[in-house]
Amino acid sequence: MTENARTLFELRGLEDRRYSLFSWRTKLALAHKELRAEYRAVRVTDKAAIAFSGQEKVPILIDGDTTVFDSWKIAEYLEARYADRASLFGGEIGRALSRFVNQWVDRQLVPAAGPLVVPDVIACVDEEDGAHLRRQMEKAFGTTLEEMRRQRAERQKVFVRVLEPARATLRGQPFIGGANAAYADYIVFSVFQWARVTSPLELLEPGDPLAAWRERILDLFDGLARREPARRAER
Amino acid sequence: MTENARTLFELRGLEDRRYSLFSWRTKLALAHKELRAEYRAVRVTDKAAIAFSGQEKVPILIDGDTTVFDSWKIAEYLEARYADRASLFGGEIGRALSRFVNQWVDRQLVPAAGPLVVPDVIACVDEEDGAHLRRQMEKAFGTTLEEMRRQRAERQKVFVRVLEPARATLRGQPFIGGANAAYADYIVFSVFQWARVTSPLELLEPGDPLAAWRERILDLFDGLARREPARRAER
Repeated sequence: MTENARTLFELRGLEDRRYSLFSWRTKLALAHKELRAEYRAVRVTDKAAIAFSGQEKVPILIDGDTTVFDSWKIAEYLEARYADRASLFGGEIGRALSRFVNQWVDRQLVPAAGPLVVPDVIACVDEEDGAHLRRQMEKAFGTTLEEMRRQRAERQKVFVRVLEPARATLRGQPFIGGANAAYADYIVFSVFQWARVTSPLELLEPGDPLAAWRERILDLFDGLARREPARRAER
Repeated sequence: MTENARTLFELRGLEDRRYSLFSWRTKLALAHKELRAEYRAVRVTDKAAIAFSGQEKVPILIDGDTTVFDSWKIAEYLEARYADRASLFGGEIGRALSRFVNQWVDRQLVPAAGPLVVPDVIACVDEEDGAHLRRQMEKAFGTTLEEMRRQRAERQKVFVRVLEPARATLRGQPFIGGANAAYADYIVFSVFQWARVTSPLELLEPGDPLAAWRERILDLFDGLARREPARRAER
């Protein structure tokens, strides 16, 4: 059996930065399954490039004859289609609880991180994408980018507090998924990778168990996530 | 092989109400494993009754020659000791993610529920336990019971918002653990059972997916949790 031709659509910014939060979940999921893919990076306003999918968001995975979009649906697809490879979820209960983690991240962590990171994202994309993201994000967060920036110190305290369940979990185990990284780790990590690629802001204190965990994820798959240049000079 | 003599220590209030949040996790975990136990209910200030365990909190499980305390440690113990019975976690990743849910509930949901429920808990216990709980809870929440009661409307909005990841998860699956209830469900449910047994306050809107899920948990194990009388007249 020859391997499927496989393509992943993600976002690119200036200097070819791959900053899409949701696409990083899929990139790490593909690596976890030891699946190669050609990455196709598009601008956020380039709807024509992904119109074939019938919707306007990345990531989109084309795997042979199958097209799947939405990072969660892609993870479920990969788990089912490549069931013989390392598991992303560890079974039915693990899949269900990964879904909970996905909802926790999207509904509590991303909203807490957004106002910290978004003002810097704009500087990582071209003018048209920047104007689009500004409209989208100011609507989503109900405030201007300038106001987000002014409230940063206060917002950062909220972000650190929202992370407490993940931090407490990591005091007792190296990964959110346990002894090894699982899809739940990639979901949480995607927020940090998004921040890392787009913003000079350091979101965590050095002694935070999440900071050590983030390094462990950056090391996975021969440094797949670390190879993406950080906006901030790294130690 | 005869079955182990098994005893679970939990709390009792006036009218023999079994209101211990953490003990309900264990009671449902035991039922999930189809394990019988003798329940021994003690007052919260009756430290002599549980001094044998070397600490001052319930639940405490005595299973043959083994004594385990802390609801999470009991769940891990039951999963390992009774590995041939229905799984609480569904494997290593499920165990790790259940731990995350445990931390989410204890660090975000319980603190959000506490100020709503605690003022009513006091009325469910005798004078000595009430004085003890008042001191403990006013210290934990940094405010008086009277102030908690005054802030109820505002606090309830926060509680409903904190629950959003669980609510969103339950829009796509009947239980947090997926198609069937798992230990993660019992962790979240324990907060609602604590409220149900002690407080006339209804925490959820009728159309909330969490309200239907709560009914499903109340039905489990021949209505184990439902048999505990509710403080509020139920429909």
